[in-house]
Amino acid sequence: MKNYAKTTLGNEGRTELHDLLGLTGAEISINHLPSGAGVPFVHSHRDNEEIYGILAGRGHAIIDGEQLALAAGDYLRIAPAAKRQFFAADSEGITYVCIQVKANSLGGFTAGDAVID
Amino acid sequence: MKNYAKTTLGNEGRTELHDLLGLTGAEISINHLPSGAGVPFVHSHRDNEEIYGILAGRGHAIIDGEQLALAAGDYLRIAPAAKRQFFAADSEGITYVCIQVKANSLGGFTAGDAVID
Repeated sequence: MKNYAKTTLGNEGRTELHDLLGLTGAEISINHLPSGAGVPFVHSHRDNEEIYGILAGRGHAIIDGEQLALAAGDYLRIAPAAKRQFFAADSEGITYVCIQVKANSLGGFTAGDAVID
Repeated sequence: MKNYAKTTLGNEGRTELHDLLGLTGAEISINHLPSGAGVPFVHSHRDNEEIYGILAGRGHAIIDGEQLALAAGDYLRIAPAAKRQFFAADSEGITYVCIQVKANSLGGFTAGDAVID
């Protein structure tokens, strides 16, 4: 495998990077919901932690029945078992990145994993 | 641990989410380099794959000696051993998310890990 892979996003509703970039430690999707739209199902995970970052727009999530307002700049960690559903605002769409990783998989990181030249 | 954690970013130069959100499968940082600035060192990783997403602005990376132009919408996977360094453009800053995960740690994902209610 090459030492890096690159892609450039357009205006797709959803782009999944795992296969596109050959990811081995995460699935990452970039998602856009137009105003008034929502993900049409509630889901949880068996093993994976999810981190959501709101890149633009507004909306809300419902997590285990609790409603949470979302706007650009918000970042969320959601535990595997939590039941979640995401919605755009009625007046504005929302763009977010969803990062799926195996819970408890990270060992060392940053200074604990990096080698400085 | 609560079923979710949330934070809202301001205009910090760098925010690290691991401790802030209690992440267990990734370290995620959101970084801003002003125009003309660059990360002051070259680094690689022992175990971790990195995924970079350019959220705003322009710049470039040097990966194993190869220069790569970067602009908003670009997403990159970089293998652990690759030597990397990031720079803003001379005329424009760059904002990017860096996602650090253990290479080969992901098992099932999306339909392979999700439970739909």
